[in-house]
Amino acid sequence: MYLHVQRLINEIVPDEPDPAAANALQEGLGGQFGEMRTMMQYLFQSMNFRGATAKPYRDLLQGIGTEEISHVELIGTTIARLTDGSPRYKGSATKPVDEPGKGGATPLADALSMGNIHHYLVGAQGALPVDSAGNPWSGSYVYNSGNLVLDLLYNLMLESTGRLQKCRIYEMTANKTARATLAYLIVRDQAHENAYAKALESLGIDWGRTLPIPKTDAERFPEVKTLLEQGLHLTQYTFSLDDLSEAGKIFRGEAPAAVGGGTLRTEQMPKGFPMDIAVERPEEFAPGLDAGLLELVQQTAELELADADRPAGS
Amino acid sequence: MYLHVQRLINEIVPDEPDPAAANALQEGLGGQFGEMRTMMQYLFQSMNFRGATAKPYRDLLQGIGTEEISHVELIGTTIARLTDGSPRYKGSATKPVDEPGKGGATPLADALSMGNIHHYLVGAQGALPVDSAGNPWSGSYVYNSGNLVLDLLYNLMLESTGRLQKCRIYEMTANKTARATLAYLIVRDQAHENAYAKALESLGIDWGRTLPIPKTDAERFPEVKTLLEQGLHLTQYTFSLDDLSEAGKIFRGEAPAAVGGGTLRTEQMPKGFPMDIAVERPEEFAPGLDAGLLELVQQTAELELADADRPAGS
Amino acid sequence: MYLHVQRLINEIVPDEPDPAAANALQEGLGGQFGEMRTMMQYLFQSMNFRGATAKPYRDLLQGIGTEEISHVELIGTTIARLTDGSPRYKGSATKPVDEPGKGGATPLADALSMGNIHHYLVGAQGALPVDSAGNPWSGSYVYNSGNLVLDLLYNLMLESTGRLQKCRIYEMTANKTARATLAYLIVRDQAHENAYAKALESLGIDWGRTLPIPKTDAERFPEVKTLLEQGLHLTQYTFSLDDLSEAGKIFRGEAPAAVGGGTLRTEQMPKGFPMDIAVERPEEFAPGLDAGLLELVQQTAELELADADRPAGS
Amino acid sequence: MYLHVQRLINEIVPDEPDPAAANALQEGLGGQFGEMRTMMQYLFQSMNFRGATAKPYRDLLQGIGTEEISHVELIGTTIARLTDGSPRYKGSATKPVDEPGKGGATPLADALSMGNIHHYLVGAQGALPVDSAGNPWSGSYVYNSGNLVLDLLYNLMLESTGRLQKCRIYEMTANKTARATLAYLIVRDQAHENAYAKALESLGIDWGRTLPIPKTDAERFPEVKTLLEQGLHLTQYTFSLDDLSEAGKIFRGEAPAAVGGGTLRTEQMPKGFPMDIAVERPEEFAPGLDAGLLELVQQTAELELADADRPAGS
Amino acid sequence: MYLHVQRLINEIVPDEPDPAAANALQEGLGGQFGEMRTMMQYLFQSMNFRGATAKPYRDLLQGIGTEEISHVELIGTTIARLTDGSPRYKGSATKPVDEPGKGGATPLADALSMGNIHHYLVGAQGALPVDSAGNPWSGSYVYNSGNLVLDLLYNLMLESTGRLQKCRIYEMTANKTARATLAYLIVRDQAHENAYAKALESLGIDWGRTLPIPKTDAERFPEVKTLLEQGLHLTQYTFSLDDLSEAGKIFRGEAPAAVGGGTLRTEQMPKGFPMDIAVERPEEFAPGLDAGLLELVQQTAELELADADRPAGS
Amino acid sequence: MYLHVQRLINEIVPDEPDPAAANALQEGLGGQFGEMRTMMQYLFQSMNFRGATAKPYRDLLQGIGTEEISHVELIGTTIARLTDGSPRYKGSATKPVDEPGKGGATPLADALSMGNIHHYLVGAQGALPVDSAGNPWSGSYVYNSGNLVLDLLYNLMLESTGRLQKCRIYEMTANKTARATLAYLIVRDQAHENAYAKALESLGIDWGRTLPIPKTDAERFPEVKTLLEQGLHLTQYTFSLDDLSEAGKIFRGEAPAAVGGGTLRTEQMPKGFPMDIAVERPEEFAPGLDAGLLELVQQTAELELADADRPAGS
Repeated sequence: MYLHVQRLINEIVPDEPDPAAANALQEGLGGQFGEMRTMMQYLFQSMNFRGATAKPYRDLLQGIGTEEISHVELIGTTIARLTDGSPRYKGSATKPVDEPGKGGATPLADALSMGNIHHYLVGAQGALPVDSAGNPWSGSYVYNSGNLVLDLLYNLMLESTGRLQKCRIYEMTANKTARATLAYLIVRDQAHENAYAKALESLGIDWGRTLPIPKTDAERFPEVKTLLEQGLHLTQYTFSLDDLSEAGKIFRGEAPAAVGGGTLRTEQMPKGFPMDIAVERPEEFAPGLDAGLLELVQQTAELELADADRPAGS
Repeated sequence: MYLHVQRLINEIVPDEPDPAAANALQEGLGGQFGEMRTMMQYLFQSMNFRGATAKPYRDLLQGIGTEEISHVELIGTTIARLTDGSPRYKGSATKPVDEPGKGGATPLADALSMGNIHHYLVGAQGALPVDSAGNPWSGSYVYNSGNLVLDLLYNLMLESTGRLQKCRIYEMTANKTARATLAYLIVRDQAHENAYAKALESLGIDWGRTLPIPKTDAERFPEVKTLLEQGLHLTQYTFSLDDLSEAGKIFRGEAPAAVGGGTLRTEQMPKGFPMDIAVERPEEFAPGLDAGLLELVQQTAELELADADRPAGS
Repeated sequence: MYLHVQRLINEIVPDEPDPAAANALQEGLGGQFGEMRTMMQYLFQSMNFRGATAKPYRDLLQGIGTEEISHVELIGTTIARLTDGSPRYKGSATKPVDEPGKGGATPLADALSMGNIHHYLVGAQGALPVDSAGNPWSGSYVYNSGNLVLDLLYNLMLESTGRLQKCRIYEMTANKTARATLAYLIVRDQAHENAYAKALESLGIDWGRTLPIPKTDAERFPEVKTLLEQGLHLTQYTFSLDDLSEAGKIFRGEAPAAVGGGTLRTEQMPKGFPMDIAVERPEEFAPGLDAGLLELVQQTAELELADADRPAGS
Repeated sequence: MYLHVQRLINEIVPDEPDPAAANALQEGLGGQFGEMRTMMQYLFQSMNFRGATAKPYRDLLQGIGTEEISHVELIGTTIARLTDGSPRYKGSATKPVDEPGKGGATPLADALSMGNIHHYLVGAQGALPVDSAGNPWSGSYVYNSGNLVLDLLYNLMLESTGRLQKCRIYEMTANKTARATLAYLIVRDQAHENAYAKALESLGIDWGRTLPIPKTDAERFPEVKTLLEQGLHLTQYTFSLDDLSEAGKIFRGEAPAAVGGGTLRTEQMPKGFPMDIAVERPEEFAPGLDAGLLELVQQTAELELADADRPAGS
Repeated sequence: MYLHVQRLINEIVPDEPDPAAANALQEGLGGQFGEMRTMMQYLFQSMNFRGATAKPYRDLLQGIGTEEISHVELIGTTIARLTDGSPRYKGSATKPVDEPGKGGATPLADALSMGNIHHYLVGAQGALPVDSAGNPWSGSYVYNSGNLVLDLLYNLMLESTGRLQKCRIYEMTANKTARATLAYLIVRDQAHENAYAKALESLGIDWGRTLPIPKTDAERFPEVKTLLEQGLHLTQYTFSLDDLSEAGKIFRGEAPAAVGGGTLRTEQMPKGFPMDIAVERPEEFAPGLDAGLLELVQQTAELELADADRPAGS
Repeated sequence: MYLHVQRLINEIVPDEPDPAAANALQEGLGGQFGEMRTMMQYLFQSMNFRGATAKPYRDLLQGIGTEEISHVELIGTTIARLTDGSPRYKGSATKPVDEPGKGGATPLADALSMGNIHHYLVGAQGALPVDSAGNPWSGSYVYNSGNLVLDLLYNLMLESTGRLQKCRIYEMTANKTARATLAYLIVRDQAHENAYAKALESLGIDWGRTLPIPKTDAERFPEVKTLLEQGLHLTQYTFSLDDLSEAGKIFRGEAPAAVGGGTLRTEQMPKGFPMDIAVERPEEFAPGLDAGLLELVQQTAELELADADRPAGS
């Protein structure tokens, strides 16, 4: 079972909206090597896991899989912020267009030439479950052979490819909102690469000089460098509420990375950052409530819950 | 952020393996109206939600979306149990075939004629992210128009269709493992249908006699009837660890269902049931560890974690 | 613009339901060379047609495209009849199962082992827009290069391949419902192959002995032989309500087929056969109306329309 | 059976070609909520319909489905006009490039940067069966559960989403050709939303203030406003040639829309507008006839049909 | 540039046709880890290779990629033999059905219940570019990150997974035709796994006990054992006609496999086995030549080529 | 079996990189009518061929299929050259950006607005197995009915459509690298169209004035004209190393083309042009070797092979 906390795993750093950068980030959300894929792959590998003696490996997969749901939440929200309001921003900074079609205006005209038109046409300036070329996410991406060595090897390659792609996206845009999320995910991918590399080390592989892939090159990406200096790539989270995870038996000792190194450690979860809710976009009819419906919504929002209706845990 | 508890949301009732039933259940996991879709649809609707005044609606989506992850876990594990060991069971009950190819044996021969061959060939007798006709899950299934009324209407239709399909699968098999999971999900789909119906009631719709869809017909499905008598369809879980969910402001008062009715209530989460780990399947090379690798795995499993490596919360 | 007549283009001959045959027929409906494809391909070729001097060719495409919509209706209804009631028929002929789940019954059990499980699980024993291997119909099938010679050549190949596949399906089943529809469509595909061959003849090609493809072999398929003797392959329908079609300028003179031959002729449309509406299937929850809803439906059905509400043309 | 009339259901208003707008309109043709989908969904729901007492509901689906074929024809032709000749227009207004490659010219250069390159490369400046992101139309879009309430609920949601998306496209372009077709389809979607809402009203649902979705906002879209003032959203067409449709028993009385309202009425079909045939595009090799082939085509076009070859109805 | 030799890379061992086994082998041809994928992946990695100093690695990819085309040829031909004539064999061994439809016969009836119906309906009892669940091969399978370590790591995992799946198929069928081809490909996959493992060894990785994956278990699969004893897994072919391949600089010394071991060696190509051409299948209309066309074909076949027309190299 | 020669079938003419042209060329590589499709279609038609008397037709398919692999190699390499280095070229011609992210630079920024972002994000500035709209190549493209006349007819249409599309791409760009490869493939498509037309002539068809499609129009495309004057469209290559191909029995005598004509002739293979290896792209992490790994690679490259390791043929 899973629970949710109303906090984001990393901060959304504010900057101007940038729909082209948002589209590039879609690769990290709905792409073949993005967060939806890592999340689903690890959840399936956990469910279908065989061999009770290998529980620490199962728990490692389960823990990383759970973290990936929070990564989906983080990068999805980042994309939503990067697309949100972009027509207004780009088209008419001094005179906002808030009412659709007024005077023949075309408040969504930018959708024709920037990023993925579906961000404006199918969604209401929000994230989509597709990659940066518009291909929908596919279940055929999930790899789960059932063979422990193969699954771990694939996962290491998957994390490395995800990091490689995020480094390339970082080189495509200087937008601060995009780069902050990219840097965080680059370092966490590094942590997961370390985790799978350690798991394979425990099975006898010596990685030599090959890891990390690509080489970290921390001095080249300032936001990444800052996080590496904090040791974020050396920490594994269990996200295990009942603390039954044995993943820490694998993720311990020295990091396998040829460059830098450091001592690995395991924590339950990070503290997180506040979540907020996006503003209305009347030109997208989202949420599209007129005065009458808005009044009904507010009645619900202002409702005081009777004791009997409160969650049991409160 | 999300956390995991090592408990299943419902019990896996034991029965014989049944790969054909397992394949039918794939529709409920990876089908167009299955649990992967509800999970992803509600998570995207939560991330992209607009309008801070409508927070109770966002929290309702977030909470149901979180529950759906546990449903993926439940139905995935059920499918894994229904496929697991079936070749041995069906083919040679008295003399198990544990060593692949010994004496020209074909321990996986049943894969050619039962259910989805990929259960044995691509996976190692485990669940797959596909539907009952073998189509991989697709991101194009996710609906998130951004318009609150439309999204709620779609969600109601989605839950009803999911329940309709599970009732049909229930009529296809008498396997107890399959039926127990189906019955649980049928009743929870009913709870979610109630939730979306109440949300639309709060916006002014009177459903008349149309709900539930299909009609509950509890007396016809014994396992369903038992759960309805416990009121499981009248309870909404927030799965909100920090108890900030305001979903209870919507899911309250009388149930919208024309038949039966009852008072709705909100809880944090159910108690859950123990999870176990599947046995090895040497004929699938899963996990495929020989004596040397197994020894290394056991060394890891027996490792006592030093204090410094323990999760921070312990 | 298009209009509809409540008559089928050919008769649905009664026989026992046969879900495996129904699944084979899906290739002729939703397959790459089935009726949905011919229909869409010709409608797109008509819409995008260039060159007013070539109007007879446009009208030929338009007319055949319109006929294909009626073919979709015919083969779709045939599939619906072949799947309809099959569980009852196969499973418990003497004691029909009308109430789902009663006494642990599994009225839809056959769905696990016959044809496409989606016929029972996603649809309610009806036709689906997929091929015989379960692949959904795809817009990528449509060919419309804009070059007249290429489009005509492709269409000839398309009709011939469609006929080839229907001859193969005919050899897979002796079911009379299936064979009657197959025979009709085989002969109409022959008529359309003749039409495209004549169009290419008018551009200078001499087909020699190559047509028809495959060779008609009428004596081998009794139902086909009967229709050929009636000359159904020598008649082109315009399905043009305002009689502006100039397709008859192409489809005239001698048939291009090496075997048999005959004089081609053009008519507006055939007389057609009565359509009926399928019975209810309570085990599929289709239409799924309980007593209360049924009463409301009957009130609507019995309603006498006031003059003002009648169609203008009546 | 279906017949065709050589008239368009609405006028194609002339304006400059605009390939980016054409690409946006593709969502309305081949998108998940476009006209190909509504057409196919209603035709399948009609073919597979169950319950003879519910014939007015079947006829409603059949009639709207037939109208959607004409909508495919309208929006497809609109897209063809918006892409047609655009390279010439944009690239070299004063000196047309009619001969491919002459002097190193690149008459199709704009294809590299505007809309969907397939409009110029795969098609010959015509409509394609794809959405605005280039995804081919898929049979998996079609929803037909067989449960009457669910099918009607889905259809209402489908029409509303189609209208929502067309309103968004309207806000993306000021091109008159695009807007005229969009406005017409927006109002007809409204009419169909009214039809499904009335059908569900007849089953007991009271829609309160929620309809229409999105709110009509007629004053914001001038072309839409004009059509609403003519009551086009209050008229249902049967497109039933033999006048056997009983759809008028449902679509009658007051419109369900909270805003505006009015009395519903049923007609057979609109009068329609003339269709024309697009000009040749030598740079696309469409139709690609050289002098010799053109002469042969003209011989066919000038042919006078002998009496025996004329359509029977003439 | 590529050349072809009319010899198969391994022998097709004769046995009865077996369409269910043929369908399982489709995974090895058109599956996500089959021969079409390895072939395409290595050809793309060769074309897009970067770094002239790393030429031996490029040549290794190029050579294995070339071998994979011959594997496609081998497994495709094997599938064709396993489906060929199966209806006749299974249905009416004593009285062959050679004429389609004669006397109401259904010579292709088995297609409804065995393997993939498309083998009989879309193809003419031949191989298809799809996997064992009927999914068409997809370009999205190809992995080519451009990073040398990642590409080699992926390739090792790909060969291992291909071998794992072929071992599972081996356990599904005792058909000699199927097993002979499977055994050959299992051992060649092992050779390629060795090649990529050596390439990564040259970059510093020590594989410990993890390879091969899965463990060879030669004693369990007699046909595999025979080939291993011949050292077929220790030989790399360059398939380089101009002998410019430098792949032998990598594939040399001791094999990386933990079990067995041996000295690696490089050869240009194997000697190969004769190819034949399948017999006609009149019930499939393949090749579908009647007496007239057959006569024309024979005229071509008997033609003596004049000197001027002979290939330059002869 | 297949062998490789380290030479390209045509020269890559140097010019500036041009990612938009590269994307258009993707249609010719991974599109529905591109080289991957012709290659796979002919290889499958060869493997599944029926009828030993028709061997010349099998050999024709086999020979053209083999040539298409070299075409994949040619157009793939062309695309790689057209994308390679484009960011550097476009963004900062005077001051190359070699180190990723240095000083906040965005060396891959152009990826957001030019061609297919996957060229930079998923690949490392290389060719992809997708079409110009980003759709992955699909096995469903392959046509192989098994009927000889139909397969030949389809192949003729396929070559003509491929040539039509390449002529359109030629009209989109004046880039010399792109045009040289396009011109070569246009003329070879013409040769293949001639081959299939001759094969159908041998079965009795007289093509009249319809071929070639589209009309060659040599004078309009200078690079094409040059190659036609060399008679490249009149030469068929067998690519048959053992010279057993009998394709020359079909491809002989006069060309079927209405315009121009000439005498057909058969050769084993062209001489070819040198292949090179692309330079490193550090901003893509391709091949991504740091100093340590580079040293290891060079050790391998400088290795002198011992006699025992040399290919057998040397």
